[in-house]
Amino acid sequence: MASNSFGKIFRFSTWGESHGPAIGAVIDGCPAGLPLNEEEINIALARRAPGKNAYTSARKEADRAQILSGLFDGVTTGAPITIMINNVDADPSKYEATKHLFKPGHANYTYLKKYGVFEYRGGGRASGRETACRVAVGAVAKKLLARQGITVCSYIKAIHTVEADIVNFNLDLLANIIHSSPIYCPDAKAAAKMMKEIERAKEAGDSLGGVVEAVAEGLPVGLGDPIYDKLEARLAYAMMGLPATKGFEVGKGFAMSTMRGSEANDLFYQEGGDVKTRTNHQGGVQGGISNGMPIVVRVAFKPPSSIAIPQKTIDIEGNEALFQQPKGSRHDPCIAIRAVPVVEAMLTITLADALLVNNTARIDR
Amino acid sequence: MASNSFGKIFRFSTWGESHGPAIGAVIDGCPAGLPLNEEEINIALARRAPGKNAYTSARKEADRAQILSGLFDGVTTGAPITIMINNVDADPSKYEATKHLFKPGHANYTYLKKYGVFEYRGGGRASGRETACRVAVGAVAKKLLARQGITVCSYIKAIHTVEADIVNFNLDLLANIIHSSPIYCPDAKAAAKMMKEIERAKEAGDSLGGVVEAVAEGLPVGLGDPIYDKLEARLAYAMMGLPATKGFEVGKGFAMSTMRGSEANDLFYQEGGDVKTRTNHQGGVQGGISNGMPIVVRVAFKPPSSIAIPQKTIDIEGNEALFQQPKGSRHDPCIAIRAVPVVEAMLTITLADALLVNNTARIDR
Amino acid sequence: MASNSFGKIFRFSTWGESHGPAIGAVIDGCPAGLPLNEEEINIALARRAPGKNAYTSARKEADRAQILSGLFDGVTTGAPITIMINNVDADPSKYEATKHLFKPGHANYTYLKKYGVFEYRGGGRASGRETACRVAVGAVAKKLLARQGITVCSYIKAIHTVEADIVNFNLDLLANIIHSSPIYCPDAKAAAKMMKEIERAKEAGDSLGGVVEAVAEGLPVGLGDPIYDKLEARLAYAMMGLPATKGFEVGKGFAMSTMRGSEANDLFYQEGGDVKTRTNHQGGVQGGISNGMPIVVRVAFKPPSSIAIPQKTIDIEGNEALFQQPKGSRHDPCIAIRAVPVVEAMLTITLADALLVNNTARIDR
Amino acid sequence: MASNSFGKIFRFSTWGESHGPAIGAVIDGCPAGLPLNEEEINIALARRAPGKNAYTSARKEADRAQILSGLFDGVTTGAPITIMINNVDADPSKYEATKHLFKPGHANYTYLKKYGVFEYRGGGRASGRETACRVAVGAVAKKLLARQGITVCSYIKAIHTVEADIVNFNLDLLANIIHSSPIYCPDAKAAAKMMKEIERAKEAGDSLGGVVEAVAEGLPVGLGDPIYDKLEARLAYAMMGLPATKGFEVGKGFAMSTMRGSEANDLFYQEGGDVKTRTNHQGGVQGGISNGMPIVVRVAFKPPSSIAIPQKTIDIEGNEALFQQPKGSRHDPCIAIRAVPVVEAMLTITLADALLVNNTARIDR
Repeated sequence: MASNSFGKIFRFSTWGESHGPAIGAVIDGCPAGLPLNEEEINIALARRAPGKNAYTSARKEADRAQILSGLFDGVTTGAPITIMINNVDADPSKYEATKHLFKPGHANYTYLKKYGVFEYRGGGRASGRETACRVAVGAVAKKLLARQGITVCSYIKAIHTVEADIVNFNLDLLANIIHSSPIYCPDAKAAAKMMKEIERAKEAGDSLGGVVEAVAEGLPVGLGDPIYDKLEARLAYAMMGLPATKGFEVGKGFAMSTMRGSEANDLFYQEGGDVKTRTNHQGGVQGGISNGMPIVVRVAFKPPSSIAIPQKTIDIEGNEALFQQPKGSRHDPCIAIRAVPVVEAMLTITLADALLVNNTARIDR
Repeated sequence: MASNSFGKIFRFSTWGESHGPAIGAVIDGCPAGLPLNEEEINIALARRAPGKNAYTSARKEADRAQILSGLFDGVTTGAPITIMINNVDADPSKYEATKHLFKPGHANYTYLKKYGVFEYRGGGRASGRETACRVAVGAVAKKLLARQGITVCSYIKAIHTVEADIVNFNLDLLANIIHSSPIYCPDAKAAAKMMKEIERAKEAGDSLGGVVEAVAEGLPVGLGDPIYDKLEARLAYAMMGLPATKGFEVGKGFAMSTMRGSEANDLFYQEGGDVKTRTNHQGGVQGGISNGMPIVVRVAFKPPSSIAIPQKTIDIEGNEALFQQPKGSRHDPCIAIRAVPVVEAMLTITLADALLVNNTARIDR
Repeated sequence: MASNSFGKIFRFSTWGESHGPAIGAVIDGCPAGLPLNEEEINIALARRAPGKNAYTSARKEADRAQILSGLFDGVTTGAPITIMINNVDADPSKYEATKHLFKPGHANYTYLKKYGVFEYRGGGRASGRETACRVAVGAVAKKLLARQGITVCSYIKAIHTVEADIVNFNLDLLANIIHSSPIYCPDAKAAAKMMKEIERAKEAGDSLGGVVEAVAEGLPVGLGDPIYDKLEARLAYAMMGLPATKGFEVGKGFAMSTMRGSEANDLFYQEGGDVKTRTNHQGGVQGGISNGMPIVVRVAFKPPSSIAIPQKTIDIEGNEALFQQPKGSRHDPCIAIRAVPVVEAMLTITLADALLVNNTARIDR
Repeated sequence: MASNSFGKIFRFSTWGESHGPAIGAVIDGCPAGLPLNEEEINIALARRAPGKNAYTSARKEADRAQILSGLFDGVTTGAPITIMINNVDADPSKYEATKHLFKPGHANYTYLKKYGVFEYRGGGRASGRETACRVAVGAVAKKLLARQGITVCSYIKAIHTVEADIVNFNLDLLANIIHSSPIYCPDAKAAAKMMKEIERAKEAGDSLGGVVEAVAEGLPVGLGDPIYDKLEARLAYAMMGLPATKGFEVGKGFAMSTMRGSEANDLFYQEGGDVKTRTNHQGGVQGGISNGMPIVVRVAFKPPSSIAIPQKTIDIEGNEALFQQPKGSRHDPCIAIRAVPVVEAMLTITLADALLVNNTARIDR
């Protein structure tokens, strides 16, 4: 049922396994006339790449996107845009030793039962590597949003129990700060604590969870569609489709369930001809439709399942066994960090799609 | 873009406004051969109906479903199943006085900007009344699940800051307890506190938020589809498409972001030939696919926007104004309560759809 | 798989059986702001209704549409538009006698094998009555086209071996002539012959096939989407989804397979600033996209399967049997006639949908 | 709107331009567990390749498929299957001279108006080269059908006014004969005449149209879905989405419009426990659903627009001009010939998809 595809009008599909020759994305529905080049995609990919510091996997993935179709004279033609990222040759032999074991927290048990076959090398299709394709597509979507003056930004909101305090919501400023943080966290003090925690977890052969927050500004009123395609529903779908996610919030989220109506309601006022709300507890959506205030979402990431500590499990025949990561495995101690650009990409893509869908809502357009 | 439709194979659409002649649902994709009758739907609708006690709106909605098509000799024929629920005649004149005001927390501002027109009587299409259709469809989906031995149950997990402690996860037992609670909360002690809180809020003309939890048991391994149609993504989409929702969690949810991998991973073991996990932090999904353990989700509901306390706002021209509920308005002090059967319906529907989608995953089926 | 739905953005679903309480359509995707009333739909339904003269079934179907949702103050709101047409009480007992027989040319054998159950009264869901819903939806789509200056017209091109000669392609004039013809044929001389043929076939208890042609004028360049959603592919899908259709052509159609490239190519020229082609062999499409010239399609209808002459068949157990129409059955001697407004509706709907889809093709819109 | 994708469950997308680095297809929805290798695809591609004899373009396209994803240990995994076919380096400079002219019968005018940009080199996305991807996907679908004992075959039914007489409908035998004919025509006598006609047209710098027929045998009853997804509607959509098609028929097609009901109805009988019909005028479909008899369809192809004879046209500014094929252009004198394997592929794909869709029609499956 086309579960490797996302989007309604700005629709893309991804393909490829972590240890195959390449991974890629095909965008079928990008409007014609958008200037685009490979470099814009590569800049986005670099943000997601591991191996830059001690807080992400030591694995090197110098991803370079190649645009195989859909461009002519530097602009999109309305034809499918294919972006291919070659995989670096990797020796998959290390996966042999554990291929008969059900890996705790991993997809191999469910894939094997569902499909009868599992590409166990590096997680195959279930690998987080697939998210590079989302980042590549996000770079294209970003150009569509930029034309409408919409800015998107994401960052680490929490790692384990350390929470960042985000005071400045100027997105340009925020973006600068985030990009200079090794863990994409704009609160330097909290970031220091987070890095300590990560170092400790790594030493213990363990891993940590975290929360990513993303914000979009400059939106028109009207994005999102009642009843089932509410903007927050599309965003929840986009985010909970990311690997390792366990929760999604918009605006004040779960905290709103502990509020009273008199506190929770965002009151309207007018400023410079624009309708605004004094608070933004709703996170920019009302009745499933953007209200022009900033969209704010949070996504909870579980700690990576791949840890150095040996774990009890069973093998395919049901015998008890001990699962131990293959020697030389290089895993992320906290996947939330590398998820930051991926969350940003999915927010960007979802909004770009909603913008195009909204073109058909009224007859006078 | 068909935003009033939900589902991939078991697909339904809903229609109708709160003050129109009727509301309804059309299911296009229910397999043929399923025994079905109106009474089964009416039982489900009764659970959602308001007016039963002090904890929900005093409004009477004696909803009766009429099946207009898709049945023959008491079984489904594979043709669309149309369920219509007549609206009771209601006097919409009370909405006249405030129709030019942007209602805090409501959909009228965003609908008006998006569509240029808004059916303001009772919220029109944006009314929570639409969820009766979801409950009706859920009653059909429930019959599909029952054939596979899958049971679904939902209840109040929290209201405002009072949290229920759910110790017994025997769903049959749980269902009995829940149905006898006026607020669908299985923890009697917590329920008492919650009811107190609601009474207090009502007196103050205010409203409260809450959290609904839902559980499904007896699932086969294999429901859900990577990459973008992960089971948790479909569920998040289903739940965040409900009115007044602000957050979604599966398994331990946001709490999992504060765990270490060594705690978070659910360890496999074998019992009676079945593969199980010792804990169920993941909430029954692994790699986006059901692993056979119970599915557990939670949905955060904001406090209803409609409160008796007057609120500052602006009118359509931007002038400051005071919004006050029309006289005789009867609103829910805590919509989470009446959302309990709706959350259950959406979980049921999503699983039924996933079951059918899964029929095509392997060639040997 | 939602096979009772049609369209991408202007999307509708139909429901209901010929002997159920009602049939209906739900349009999910009509832009907001379109003025609409029931009378406009009823005028269209009247054109399709049987019982007006000797050339269609004597059955009376005084169809009246009721709009149940999606309108406010006389304009569409962007919410689903539900149109319901009540069925007249009919005695289904006459179908009892033949319900165990496979009816030659009918759907009961295939439905029964596919679904295991068949609503045999009047054909149930497989009845041509469902096309009334398409005509109702077509009346809504027509209003969308009218806003863009697009006119659509259909008529009988051939009945049995008698072919009409259409000389005047002025659609307004043509429409007048067609509406005054009892068999919707603009060539009076051919029409006379056709009516004779029908009378003869009726007397013999037999039925006749025919060809319907439809034309659309005033189209912008750009409707239709490569590669798989070419305008002619969408139209073929729309038309071959009508009951009793066996063939589809666009432009010169099959005759074009006997032409040479030097004859077939439509040569471009400019007139009054507009790009036109000197001939229109392509029928208004080039590379799957409308080129601004009139769209011309033809649809072949087989003779109705229901004839008074007894026919050999078998029963459900495989025993040889003789199938004879139930007494009092009133069937169309040539269904192509009543298909004329249905073909027009499907052309109208397909173009309205293509217009909306085209809103998202380029960034500068 | 994802117009480069086809199929509901067995769904694929294609991408790439004729003068880009490669073209390709991504299948998202092939069931897991299907054995597959590149050679099977290459055999299919070879049948479509030009340059084999005087009756197709002299252009050499030694297409070799590369499977980039979705396979593990020689079987499909349920993940997207990506097939890439590299383009041979071609000098696009010859297209420079005519890029400002609207080419008669070609897509450049409509693409340019729709998208504002056109990849004019070799037709870009509008090139018939895209159909190689359909053939590659068809080779995968064929393996799904083979497992169910379904055989598909296609051949030239007519070129210009010469029609083939197909007497033997044994598909295995037929396939052998067809593959040994330079123009895929099983009637040797007619084929000789056709080849003469083609030679003559080539000499005159002209081109010819033709008709392709395709047959599928061994089908179960039940493929196809009422109301809008009738099997013939899906097939019409599939075929009319091929470049240069102008007409589609199923069974007796347009000829059926000149028949009487008493002749047209296929009468049921039982043979060896199977329900069959004595004739097959319907072409294997009844009520939109396969009835177990052979599916027979015909597709009309117009003569290729690219001819050596100069043609009058206009340029982008509207000035009159003469369009002449670039020197060294090598075009097909009759595209119907090379369309034979493409029609077969689309029939195969449509049936494979319908088979999977049918898995969800009844509860007892």
